[in-house]
Amino acid sequence: MRDLTEERLADAVVERLANIPDARARRVLSALVQHLHAFAREVELTEAEWKLGIQFLTEAGQISSGTRQEVILLSDVLGLSALVDSINHRVPQGATESTVLGPFFVEGAPNLPNGADLTEGVDTSTAPGEPTWVNGRVLTLDGAPIADAAVDVWQTRPDALYDVQDDDHAMQMRAQFRTDAEGRFFFKTYKPVSYPVPKDGPVGGLLDLIGGHGMRPAHIHAIASAPGYRRVVTHIFPAGDEYLDSDTVFAVKDSLVADFREVTSAEEAARLGMPSPFLEVDFDFRLVPQA
Amino acid sequence: MRDLTEERLADAVVERLANIPDARARRVLSALVQHLHAFAREVELTEAEWKLGIQFLTEAGQISSGTRQEVILLSDVLGLSALVDSINHRVPQGATESTVLGPFFVEGAPNLPNGADLTEGVDTSTAPGEPTWVNGRVLTLDGAPIADAAVDVWQTRPDALYDVQDDDHAMQMRAQFRTDAEGRFFFKTYKPVSYPVPKDGPVGGLLDLIGGHGMRPAHIHAIASAPGYRRVVTHIFPAGDEYLDSDTVFAVKDSLVADFREVTSAEEAARLGMPSPFLEVDFDFRLVPQA
Repeated sequence: MRDLTEERLADAVVERLANIPDARARRVLSALVQHLHAFAREVELTEAEWKLGIQFLTEAGQISSGTRQEVILLSDVLGLSALVDSINHRVPQGATESTVLGPFFVEGAPNLPNGADLTEGVDTSTAPGEPTWVNGRVLTLDGAPIADAAVDVWQTRPDALYDVQDDDHAMQMRAQFRTDAEGRFFFKTYKPVSYPVPKDGPVGGLLDLIGGHGMRPAHIHAIASAPGYRRVVTHIFPAGDEYLDSDTVFAVKDSLVADFREVTSAEEAARLGMPSPFLEVDFDFRLVPQA
Repeated sequence: MRDLTEERLADAVVERLANIPDARARRVLSALVQHLHAFAREVELTEAEWKLGIQFLTEAGQISSGTRQEVILLSDVLGLSALVDSINHRVPQGATESTVLGPFFVEGAPNLPNGADLTEGVDTSTAPGEPTWVNGRVLTLDGAPIADAAVDVWQTRPDALYDVQDDDHAMQMRAQFRTDAEGRFFFKTYKPVSYPVPKDGPVGGLLDLIGGHGMRPAHIHAIASAPGYRRVVTHIFPAGDEYLDSDTVFAVKDSLVADFREVTSAEEAARLGMPSPFLEVDFDFRLVPQA
């Protein structure tokens, strides 16, 4: 293992990896080395560029914390997170498509009854929210209702922040629901709003270089699950958002875009306990049976 | 930019990079994205593996500090540092080959006269050093001497540590020399010893997985430079080291391995001010003229 040519070096590294006992780990690391070396050879990476890369990754690690993950953000902005999501959640036609989990999911959101109000206690002094009624069902691929399915939702407040971005992290605008006998879930919320990814770290510098707006189109995060079915982690995107075609993390799928339509009927508002007018959106999850 | 297939996603990311004003940055980042995606598609990277990678890079950044660089160590262990060095320092036949700089170089080592003793003040209570006389010349490719060339050297102490690995970082076993009219430099030192790379960080975990010893063969680091010539950053490896064929960072080149021969002549020892017996090594640098 001396006098390795540029072309031969990757093979030499891979030969050393041959001692890894686990076949899968061996395969993944070997492919990583081959692609990493192929990249460096293809562009003839300069020492200055290599140093920039080292510094970038170091800073990304160092700015990360319990409530911030810059390395994931890097993966997001390079489209890797969306790719890994797609690879791992191929679904048949008609099933609800997945998209990225994102960094704002929190375990243990409150279990609330259908019809609950997610806007309670949310400060709207800086940005008024648009009251929204969310209706949905969890269904089989044949359209049969799945009762007692779990639907976990979380989203931005009207001020474009998630609760975990506050210093105190008090839970807001997140809940877990259970579907009724007809597979339905429903709740009151504010329409989610588009928001920028954090731009004060190295990935912000990359976004500036790209000239990207760094925005994500508005969305309600959701996870739907039921025994015997594959869990789906996804988003519900309001139609018409200006960033749908330029999502910073490449996570938009047409099947996940839903109409948030205005309801002007005062009777309907009264029946649901909503102000008038309000927005209403329907979104059904169609789950794939477990293999 | 919606409904991107796994194959199409990398192209979509690259399309976004098209806004980067600098052509070189655009090319490097585009190639990085294509290779990163090709890797993930080829192995069908699982979410658990992706998370492990995120966590690994995050920890590598977080354990790095002013005196430790785990991301560089990762690059070293994957052979990337050696590759980048080779790509950037292609030299004609007969020129001194380069190898990796490593993390232990320090600016501002003392300027010492030829014949100086690098062992002064070095504690040998835990490991006796092998007194060594280093002789060398800095030459043109035709073998003509280059006077007043700079030769910067640094190496391990007999205890297998570099000075910067001490808490106080007092400079030891590093110096800058100038060649005389015949292009010669010479100094007294201890034979360098092989040593392990730091194994208490995430890269240590990777080395454990690989089953690697994590050792570097002994070497004296050197940088030789002179006006009008390309600077060469390299190592001098003692022949016979047990790790020459399995260097953890893939940095050994046959042309850099030199014989540290035993000198038993008491007269020669007395002439040089060395104990008897001692080791002696000759190593010439042959520099490439600047383009």
